[in-house]
Amino acid sequence: MIVAMRSDATQADIERVVETIAEYGLRAMTLPGGERVAIGITSSISHDVRDTLTEVLNSLAGVGHVTQVSRAYKLASREFNPVDSVVEIKGVKIGAPTFTVAAGPCAIENRDQLMQTAESVEKSGAKLLRGGAFKPRTSPYAFQGLGVEGLKLLKEAGEATGMVTVTEIMDQHDAELIAEYADILQIGARNMQNYSLLSAVGRMDVPVLLKRGPGATIDEWLLAAEYILCQGNSKVILCERGVHPLDRAYTRYTLDILAIPVVKSISHLPVLVDPSHAAGNRAYVPSLCCAAAAAGADGLLVEVHPEPSKALCDGPQALTLDTFATVMQQVKSLCGNKVF
Amino acid sequence: MIVAMRSDATQADIERVVETIAEYGLRAMTLPGGERVAIGITSSISHDVRDTLTEVLNSLAGVGHVTQVSRAYKLASREFNPVDSVVEIKGVKIGAPTFTVAAGPCAIENRDQLMQTAESVEKSGAKLLRGGAFKPRTSPYAFQGLGVEGLKLLKEAGEATGMVTVTEIMDQHDAELIAEYADILQIGARNMQNYSLLSAVGRMDVPVLLKRGPGATIDEWLLAAEYILCQGNSKVILCERGVHPLDRAYTRYTLDILAIPVVKSISHLPVLVDPSHAAGNRAYVPSLCCAAAAAGADGLLVEVHPEPSKALCDGPQALTLDTFATVMQQVKSLCGNKVF
Amino acid sequence: MIVAMRSDATQADIERVVETIAEYGLRAMTLPGGERVAIGITSSISHDVRDTLTEVLNSLAGVGHVTQVSRAYKLASREFNPVDSVVEIKGVKIGAPTFTVAAGPCAIENRDQLMQTAESVEKSGAKLLRGGAFKPRTSPYAFQGLGVEGLKLLKEAGEATGMVTVTEIMDQHDAELIAEYADILQIGARNMQNYSLLSAVGRMDVPVLLKRGPGATIDEWLLAAEYILCQGNSKVILCERGVHPLDRAYTRYTLDILAIPVVKSISHLPVLVDPSHAAGNRAYVPSLCCAAAAAGADGLLVEVHPEPSKALCDGPQALTLDTFATVMQQVKSLCGNKVF
Amino acid sequence: MIVAMRSDATQADIERVVETIAEYGLRAMTLPGGERVAIGITSSISHDVRDTLTEVLNSLAGVGHVTQVSRAYKLASREFNPVDSVVEIKGVKIGAPTFTVAAGPCAIENRDQLMQTAESVEKSGAKLLRGGAFKPRTSPYAFQGLGVEGLKLLKEAGEATGMVTVTEIMDQHDAELIAEYADILQIGARNMQNYSLLSAVGRMDVPVLLKRGPGATIDEWLLAAEYILCQGNSKVILCERGVHPLDRAYTRYTLDILAIPVVKSISHLPVLVDPSHAAGNRAYVPSLCCAAAAAGADGLLVEVHPEPSKALCDGPQALTLDTFATVMQQVKSLCGNKVF
Repeated sequence: MIVAMRSDATQADIERVVETIAEYGLRAMTLPGGERVAIGITSSISHDVRDTLTEVLNSLAGVGHVTQVSRAYKLASREFNPVDSVVEIKGVKIGAPTFTVAAGPCAIENRDQLMQTAESVEKSGAKLLRGGAFKPRTSPYAFQGLGVEGLKLLKEAGEATGMVTVTEIMDQHDAELIAEYADILQIGARNMQNYSLLSAVGRMDVPVLLKRGPGATIDEWLLAAEYILCQGNSKVILCERGVHPLDRAYTRYTLDILAIPVVKSISHLPVLVDPSHAAGNRAYVPSLCCAAAAAGADGLLVEVHPEPSKALCDGPQALTLDTFATVMQQVKSLCGNKVF
Repeated sequence: MIVAMRSDATQADIERVVETIAEYGLRAMTLPGGERVAIGITSSISHDVRDTLTEVLNSLAGVGHVTQVSRAYKLASREFNPVDSVVEIKGVKIGAPTFTVAAGPCAIENRDQLMQTAESVEKSGAKLLRGGAFKPRTSPYAFQGLGVEGLKLLKEAGEATGMVTVTEIMDQHDAELIAEYADILQIGARNMQNYSLLSAVGRMDVPVLLKRGPGATIDEWLLAAEYILCQGNSKVILCERGVHPLDRAYTRYTLDILAIPVVKSISHLPVLVDPSHAAGNRAYVPSLCCAAAAAGADGLLVEVHPEPSKALCDGPQALTLDTFATVMQQVKSLCGNKVF
Repeated sequence: MIVAMRSDATQADIERVVETIAEYGLRAMTLPGGERVAIGITSSISHDVRDTLTEVLNSLAGVGHVTQVSRAYKLASREFNPVDSVVEIKGVKIGAPTFTVAAGPCAIENRDQLMQTAESVEKSGAKLLRGGAFKPRTSPYAFQGLGVEGLKLLKEAGEATGMVTVTEIMDQHDAELIAEYADILQIGARNMQNYSLLSAVGRMDVPVLLKRGPGATIDEWLLAAEYILCQGNSKVILCERGVHPLDRAYTRYTLDILAIPVVKSISHLPVLVDPSHAAGNRAYVPSLCCAAAAAGADGLLVEVHPEPSKALCDGPQALTLDTFATVMQQVKSLCGNKVF
Repeated sequence: MIVAMRSDATQADIERVVETIAEYGLRAMTLPGGERVAIGITSSISHDVRDTLTEVLNSLAGVGHVTQVSRAYKLASREFNPVDSVVEIKGVKIGAPTFTVAAGPCAIENRDQLMQTAESVEKSGAKLLRGGAFKPRTSPYAFQGLGVEGLKLLKEAGEATGMVTVTEIMDQHDAELIAEYADILQIGARNMQNYSLLSAVGRMDVPVLLKRGPGATIDEWLLAAEYILCQGNSKVILCERGVHPLDRAYTRYTLDILAIPVVKSISHLPVLVDPSHAAGNRAYVPSLCCAAAAAGADGLLVEVHPEPSKALCDGPQALTLDTFATVMQQVKSLCGNKVF
């Protein structure tokens, strides 16, 4: 059971609810879910008590609504927030009815590469600029990113184009540093269950883009989001990027397109799709962009590079600037009823 | 290497090609791929010989073109036929640039159920009527279909509505019987590697809808198609219906949307999508229909039932007649450049 | 609910049970499960009726015991038969406490190859001779087996060495033919859900070795066995041969060693392990043989070839005759408490 | 190509090798792999140069041997170290020909629980005591461990019984703290690709137990080990604990028993098996312990609890003290040729 407090609830209101729950011999947990506090009852409640308690709690000052949440995730659930969440950063909205596209190179390589990409994708309609400065690479011998130098270039490109920036964080101790330079912190697939990192960004007031691990079930993904939400940071954006494939003869992963309508029905959080990592081959990326838009995703995260053949990281899956422009036209035509 | 003969090639032309290949010490296999014969060279060819032989073969009477096919599948490959194949049955086309929808109940239950469904889905724009008479069920104790009685009803409904009919075949010895009543034979996911069945329908002159097994790689799927094609039946329609999921908490399978652009790029065969079995839950079917159309599928195979809650088989995933009508409108609006 | 009749129950006894069940408004299904008949109640039964009905049925002539079976499979369940089933063919037993090894080439190629293998593996302790005459191959262009000629060689080798023979059946219409030559019919992984084939061998009085499909859950596998059992053939032997792998960099499949203790606890059927197809590489086969024995399997199905490098099929995974002899010694030492 | 320096090589020797490589226009990376330094050439080398360079390098002072390593992992490969690595802690060896068992509760709950378990498993033959103080839990609302209080109890129990202790680290900033109390740092499956954490423990001089992620391929697992090794810490112990299952009807994961012989053939690192997390059900744990030993694992990591039904974490998969004692007897009898 979750008691969602009103946004104007006072600390005294909150304490009164916690005490009331305690009087019934139940354990309450205060969940600072962004703009408004929620109080979860984590003990199991008998059917007899449930109805009485619901009535009592509903009558208390500051209480918004009381809901039963059967899932393991609470704050991420549609029951907790029946309305689609919208994360807003510098005027850019992520969440229905807006369709938001993030584009940019896998790794930031130099000023020219980044600036050329940013200017082009911005013209094509992307509102977010993505680019990796700290790169998680399967091999320790692969290019690991430009680090702080990359962050500076990202900030510069964001300011020059008026775009919101997103970059990956791999270590919670870089959180403050990265947040100085970038607008959205991305948690990559490999760190989806790095609970120290999730909790750390949960304690910050910065939007977080949470990618799904390739082996994570939908519940594991939403519980990872819950780790962030239950620390008080409600600005969570989900991103599907492909699950384990049957084989890798043609693609890197299997894009779980079904996850889009499923997550949209059980959670209020916005969901983007990353077609680039799923496909691993730019030939298939345009079809996936269209499929994601048609399936109801709230946006895309696409790898774009001015010269994919010279990319230091994931070149084969990056779209050229021109192809990206074309894809954006196609996607717009599929999103007639969305704000672009 | 594959030698595609022209459609007006004579038996003597074919024999001359086979002899020529033999003169080079190589093994030739005549593949009666539908309207035109192909001759595959199944021995490995040295680089020296390849160029000379290609030149020689190209100069022979009746030869259309000579191509290198690196994949294990030959007749199913895009190299063999660079143009999209179109399967035509009673004036209904399946294959680009047409978008073709098959709809109907999982199992044929009685005349009323089938007729009501057929009339409704035909009005909504479906050109194919699907319905199972012989049902492959995981449990031997589950409803196994009406058998011949079901076939008769299917034929009746097809004639009454002018729709082309499709039904599943599980046993090669029913092939002639089923082909008397239905227009397209469907091979289900469980029988995708039942090579006796594939070869049997390969020897017939009837369109075959080949579903992908949930654990089949794309190569295994195309090689299953090759079993049909290499017997001389070129009327093969592929159907993606979901692969093994990470878990089954919300859906039955994971729809492999990426398989659509992949198969369209490596094969000339038409590809439909069955969103119903993949989702296992009607709530997610409309989104998948839209995603499939946007990803470039050549059509859909959708389960529709007048009263899903009373269905004898797979009720939870069947759309109602009204929802299907709505979905068809959405899909049409996404397929602006296709013939509907 | 299942009513297991005693082996001396008369037809009249059986009919009386069926009538009694019908009197309660429930549907009965007679399941000729080998030596004794079982009667399953396939309608759902209210708690009130269950106890009374159990009492009534237990009092009828010919009734052995009445059990609740909660699983979808009935005759394959441990509840139906609490004792380990033993399949006996020509004096060779398969099922605890015996440990039985089948060995031989993937495909029968010629008399010398087969006879040399048979004589050697028999000396090493194998009681069953395996060899394929009809081969299911992923590609239609691969070697498909010697057919009837292969069956004749198999029979000859079996008689010469006193070994029980096992070979694959792919088409139900070959069933009588194959049963003339071989002692055990093997149903391969690709045909595990070919229900026509399962039902056909279910109507025969011949032992069946049922391989698990690489994508089949344990329930799907046991329900496939149920298709055979419910037709009256109780001589079913299960065989685990690997499930879908995460990747194929080093092996073909992932051997599901956990399936051994799971199936032994929920079913009474004997379970063999095929390490050769799982590994796809002979280097790993000895370790898997030992692991299977230690995990409680009832035997092995191993590919052995006198000259693996010249094998027409699956050479890389075949053990040499010498390595097989060594492995058998290791396995015996691990099976101290089993009859070898 | 990898140049393994001798353990008595001087800094000058190392520099000479690096310079020589640079003279050929190639990039060298010094890898401080524990007792001896290795120098990897990360540029690609033409065939012409390879032979000459190998000869030249072999002639330099301090060079042990020069090897071609085709795999992405270098220091973890069998080519780098053809002999089985043995990690030794306080006289306890992990690595062939020793078979080492770690046992203990999933989570440390209180002194009595831990001490009772430690004394019992030590008597049964376990040399390592495992117990979680910081617990990674899928849900943020589940019991997260006792923290430092748990570490103190672990150290106390280790000293009282003379056992070596192992506990999980989730955050690199706890590394020094945990290393004060425990002998081996465990990196759990969820953090297998947390590269910040891997690098951090790589810079320490403490043994690390690296669990395989349930979705990690063998190459991804060995590359995770490489992240630790290439920082200079050679004391890496691998642990297989189950990969993604086909379904979860009976078990939590699929134990990848094949990974044991595969990893033993391509890497020199010791490999343990955790049967408890794989099975998720204590009924199947004894069979898996035996299978792992028979397959060639270097030891086990088993969850044991004095009262599993009261465990705060993963009770269903914990063995009782008595069952563990019995299992140890069985495993010993299977490991005749190992040091126990």
